[in-house]
Amino acid sequence: MKILVINCGSSSIKYQLFNMEKEVVMISGLAERIGEPEGKLTHIKYPDTEEELTLVKEEPIPDHKAGMNTIVSLLTDKQHGIIEDTGEIFAIGHRVVHGGERFHTPTLIDDEVIKTIEETIPLAPLHNPANLMGIRVAQALIPRASQVAIFDTAFHQTMAPEAFHYSLPYEYYEELGVRRYGFHGTSHSYVAKEAAKLMGRHLDELNLMTIHLGSGASTCAIENGKSVDTSMGMTPVAGIIMGTRSGNIDPGIMIYLAKTKGMSIEELDHVITHESGLKGICGLNDMRDIHRKAKEGDMRAQLALDMFVRRIKKYIGNYLAILGRLDGIVFTAGIGEHDVEIRERCCEKLERLGIVLDPEKNKQEHEGPLQINKPESSVALFVIPTNEELEIAQQTKEVLESEGLK
Amino acid sequence: MKILVINCGSSSIKYQLFNMEKEVVMISGLAERIGEPEGKLTHIKYPDTEEELTLVKEEPIPDHKAGMNTIVSLLTDKQHGIIEDTGEIFAIGHRVVHGGERFHTPTLIDDEVIKTIEETIPLAPLHNPANLMGIRVAQALIPRASQVAIFDTAFHQTMAPEAFHYSLPYEYYEELGVRRYGFHGTSHSYVAKEAAKLMGRHLDELNLMTIHLGSGASTCAIENGKSVDTSMGMTPVAGIIMGTRSGNIDPGIMIYLAKTKGMSIEELDHVITHESGLKGICGLNDMRDIHRKAKEGDMRAQLALDMFVRRIKKYIGNYLAILGRLDGIVFTAGIGEHDVEIRERCCEKLERLGIVLDPEKNKQEHEGPLQINKPESSVALFVIPTNEELEIAQQTKEVLESEGLK
Repeated sequence: MKILVINCGSSSIKYQLFNMEKEVVMISGLAERIGEPEGKLTHIKYPDTEEELTLVKEEPIPDHKAGMNTIVSLLTDKQHGIIEDTGEIFAIGHRVVHGGERFHTPTLIDDEVIKTIEETIPLAPLHNPANLMGIRVAQALIPRASQVAIFDTAFHQTMAPEAFHYSLPYEYYEELGVRRYGFHGTSHSYVAKEAAKLMGRHLDELNLMTIHLGSGASTCAIENGKSVDTSMGMTPVAGIIMGTRSGNIDPGIMIYLAKTKGMSIEELDHVITHESGLKGICGLNDMRDIHRKAKEGDMRAQLALDMFVRRIKKYIGNYLAILGRLDGIVFTAGIGEHDVEIRERCCEKLERLGIVLDPEKNKQEHEGPLQINKPESSVALFVIPTNEELEIAQQTKEVLESEGLK
Repeated sequence: MKILVINCGSSSIKYQLFNMEKEVVMISGLAERIGEPEGKLTHIKYPDTEEELTLVKEEPIPDHKAGMNTIVSLLTDKQHGIIEDTGEIFAIGHRVVHGGERFHTPTLIDDEVIKTIEETIPLAPLHNPANLMGIRVAQALIPRASQVAIFDTAFHQTMAPEAFHYSLPYEYYEELGVRRYGFHGTSHSYVAKEAAKLMGRHLDELNLMTIHLGSGASTCAIENGKSVDTSMGMTPVAGIIMGTRSGNIDPGIMIYLAKTKGMSIEELDHVITHESGLKGICGLNDMRDIHRKAKEGDMRAQLALDMFVRRIKKYIGNYLAILGRLDGIVFTAGIGEHDVEIRERCCEKLERLGIVLDPEKNKQEHEGPLQINKPESSVALFVIPTNEELEIAQQTKEVLESEGLK
């Protein structure tokens, strides 16, 4: 069974073709700078194998339909493709950023579903229109494949009202959908399932905390396998400190900046999204650069590290208090998977709370998952590489099976 | 030694005259609606004693100087006063809301200090001008008394950079003073000292969490007697859920409300300050009303309670993670001192973290401090009535002693 995973951005299409019997990626690619003068398409057959074959085309890609046309022709190409006809693609799993309150699970796409995703655009004005465009183009070009929407927000729809409501006028929720939605759901869900496998236990009996640390970053509290809290909020700006996003700040500061500095809403939006976080503190947003600068004695790089770690530790405490019992913590995504020092510091001085990291295990070279706690730790500690595309492919397959379409 | 404590608001003067040998209040009063058509002055001699004598004057109070003049004449009045001459007032302790980064300690007031408080006005545009007015009027009318400023922010000036900085462009700190200051310092400081006394230990060897739950509310993490973190931020809107203040919210929501609802900065300011918190969630901001409504089955009142408790529990977790070892938790101020149910629920399911409340002790009638943990709790739990005025009087006395002015 072949499943194509599509993650469509406003000027890009990311795609992976999975062989679901073996759960391996057969083709992976990225069309970028769509609609710009200089487009680029990178297409890799059999990635990360000895037969790997990469094609890079640098030519304008006028729109998403043109991009998808090129992708389809490459998937069926004699040299760079692996299928003869798009009819071999059994299903397409689309990443959709925002499912609002309507989508709790992966959903087979029909006109009604498209209409509902359209209605959710105000909640994700940059992302959902691009995701919808990907769905429409795929429907037109690969009509025989079943299309499934996988929402970043769906995993968090199990949160209780006291976790998802804000302490703002209640009518903002009723009229404008102001509530916590959370994001990175596919990643939190994927690594939680992997952690359960590593622990040899059922996910639905485990309390876990998953910490996704990429350029976007979020934490998730999982009780008996279900998300009960997450650090991102109504928007992906909230929570822990990110590359350029502020995470939580005193809301009064926005008022202060508008009043004393005369900043407009657009400027404030730009600042908390693109000029804050690690970049705001020290001018850099790549964690490797920040470590290097800090080692050279740069005080603000050191401050950025200290603040980043401190905020994550606070969330560890948060979730310990909310969950009462914590069975495991999982670090994932770029920084979570590769930053030995950040992981070590996040667990520092938490021994009394049952969190005892083993610095030697934490340092081990690894490609797959790694367990990094000492035996006496009551909380199991893991590093687990995330794989959002595989999770989308798996969820797509499950939806079709449950619909009797396998 | 007699010390007068003054807390001057934009249209009010709150005052207490202390006998510092016995640390008792001899006179307590409030001039309110200053500058409005219907002023009111309440003056109580020997409050909470058998000799208590109350005077209420309902007449216009044109300005703060007129108000202070009336207060001085009442302090020296044959029937309602207790001194013959203002010369008997040894010192005056003024509450000043914002001390910025310049004031770490209670400070003897001179021209330089007044100038610095003036410079801090942008950080507390409503409060500091009123506090300054109180200082000036008191200097004019009670010239022989030493005047001391006690800052709400001073106790938190021991926070480390990683605790007080925001993940915003660093120049906002350098140019505009954007950082966490924290408030309620006198209250947190007072109850922490009282907790140390009750524990029979030195404050500087204790790690405590103090939870001030009034209509304004904040938490404080105290390490070896010093504030290392607090839930309020640059402004008193941040942190836990309050009567009408939102506490922390996703900053992206402000952008969303401005864009979709066309709200102005002034409207957003008003909403997060006066229309949010408990009031926003359920329409009520008095916790007693909320309990009553919740018991009647009102879902939103119940939601407000659940959210209020959940947020405090998260901070308990926060501080456990930051402090590593927690010796005691103190509940104080209106809700903290009197709300049995909130205290019980804040400690629910925290047994694994060493927090074991005794529901029977928690229910006890009390006027003074109360210890409410079970013997097996590794964290001592206290209810301690706060007394910001006494703390101001004590700190005023200490400043004068250290200056050799006793």
